[in-house]
Amino acid sequence: MGNVNLGVVGTGLIGGSIALAGSRAGYEVTFYEPASCPVETVLSGAVRATSLDELASSSDLIFIATPVSTIAAVADRLAPFVRPTAIVSDVASVKGPVFGRLSEIFDGRCFYVPSHPMAGSEKSGLEAARVNLFENAVAIISPDRCRDKGVLERLAHFWREAGSIPLFVDVLTHDRLVAAVSHLPHLVAAILMMHAAEFASEGLSFVGNGFRDSTRIAAGSPELWTEILLANRTDLLTNLYRFRDALNETARVLEANDAKSLQAFLDAAKRSRDRLAG
Amino acid sequence: MGNVNLGVVGTGLIGGSIALAGSRAGYEVTFYEPASCPVETVLSGAVRATSLDELASSSDLIFIATPVSTIAAVADRLAPFVRPTAIVSDVASVKGPVFGRLSEIFDGRCFYVPSHPMAGSEKSGLEAARVNLFENAVAIISPDRCRDKGVLERLAHFWREAGSIPLFVDVLTHDRLVAAVSHLPHLVAAILMMHAAEFASEGLSFVGNGFRDSTRIAAGSPELWTEILLANRTDLLTNLYRFRDALNETARVLEANDAKSLQAFLDAAKRSRDRLAG
Repeated sequence: MGNVNLGVVGTGLIGGSIALAGSRAGYEVTFYEPASCPVETVLSGAVRATSLDELASSSDLIFIATPVSTIAAVADRLAPFVRPTAIVSDVASVKGPVFGRLSEIFDGRCFYVPSHPMAGSEKSGLEAARVNLFENAVAIISPDRCRDKGVLERLAHFWREAGSIPLFVDVLTHDRLVAAVSHLPHLVAAILMMHAAEFASEGLSFVGNGFRDSTRIAAGSPELWTEILLANRTDLLTNLYRFRDALNETARVLEANDAKSLQAFLDAAKRSRDRLAG
Repeated sequence: MGNVNLGVVGTGLIGGSIALAGSRAGYEVTFYEPASCPVETVLSGAVRATSLDELASSSDLIFIATPVSTIAAVADRLAPFVRPTAIVSDVASVKGPVFGRLSEIFDGRCFYVPSHPMAGSEKSGLEAARVNLFENAVAIISPDRCRDKGVLERLAHFWREAGSIPLFVDVLTHDRLVAAVSHLPHLVAAILMMHAAEFASEGLSFVGNGFRDSTRIAAGSPELWTEILLANRTDLLTNLYRFRDALNETARVLEANDAKSLQAFLDAAKRSRDRLAG
């Protein structure tokens, strides 16, 4: 890559993994972490910036990897110092509330293009970061306003270097789709977990891997997920209502003891899930 | 164990794994598989019986590991030939519909004690069987009618030899608890999968591990699960209605944009899930 300077703001699970993957791929990595935690030991290949303007003025590609609620404030502080050729990206799980604001903030100053790597963990923080977190995961890039092919390719190139598969999806579509495949499943996992804890707590002593897998994401950070779910609540509610309709339809099938319809439904679900695995 | 003869009827995922674990533990294993499939290569340490009466007359401990709908028919054919000191167990995921019938069939003929190993896979059939399938899983034993300590200990001993942890739970409690921790999660996984497939199919090209884990069990056998869910449909519906109430409560929290309540809920779910992992 010839000395591309990568700046990472926030060194949680995603930011830390971006820094690790960037160092491995040969980027010169600078990071900024406002908390006074000793992150240098983990990110030994990277340089810690003492301020956001120091990071901004020295970076060709910047990822803002802080919680959704703080992204705009970080962008405000970066904006006066970014290089005009720089690309700034965020990694927010919800694009709508961030995109409009950041587009304004960076307009005329640099290139702003959102990212969302579809990788994560129920664990959070730098201690969960991994150099290979993004491997074989799709990295969504939203080219709604920036259609400069060279810029998009530089961002896509980073994600490929991190081991992931870039995919271009616009902001509104992104938010609608992740509501169905990420935010609703998160909420449902939490409800399943609490249902069992409150209604069948003795059963928790003998659950198998099925229950463990179904509820794993319910161990995710409550702070981060409260922000994410509320930031996408219109799309999430649309999905939740539709999911509830499907639940009611399934209840009717059970009430009617209708083996044929139940099996047809489970068959269709299995076929969809099998396609996913392949 | 000194030449205990183990008989296994049905060589799918569970029966096959019981035969493999029994062979490893030093039991003399005989199995009966009505389908004309070449199972001997997988179960090379075991002897294939040509009939159920041959298996019954030579076994000290018999597991009926066929689908729920066929267990009673198998029991009927075994009963005239079982040794009076033999223990017969089944491995049905739902006990209610099987227990009363099998208790009658084996009454005065041998000891009948239900089992349910809380281990499985979204895969089914002998090709998915594993000698270590039951390791670290709880094996539920229901001592509702047979309270003979020596008999219960012989059955518990087998499950310990297979690597699992025996736990005594009566039939009604079993069915109530598995409805919450197994049957409802299965149905919900299938609904989540179909919801995404129908409402956000483009999103399936970029799902992460969270979605994969949440929906993994939806790939289970539709035939087997239709039987299981309908066999426990009263308990399942009770759980489904309560889950729906919790879903509605969560919808109200989202509609009200109530961050405090949402985070308190996600916090509680995380604490429960973290306890499960430990």
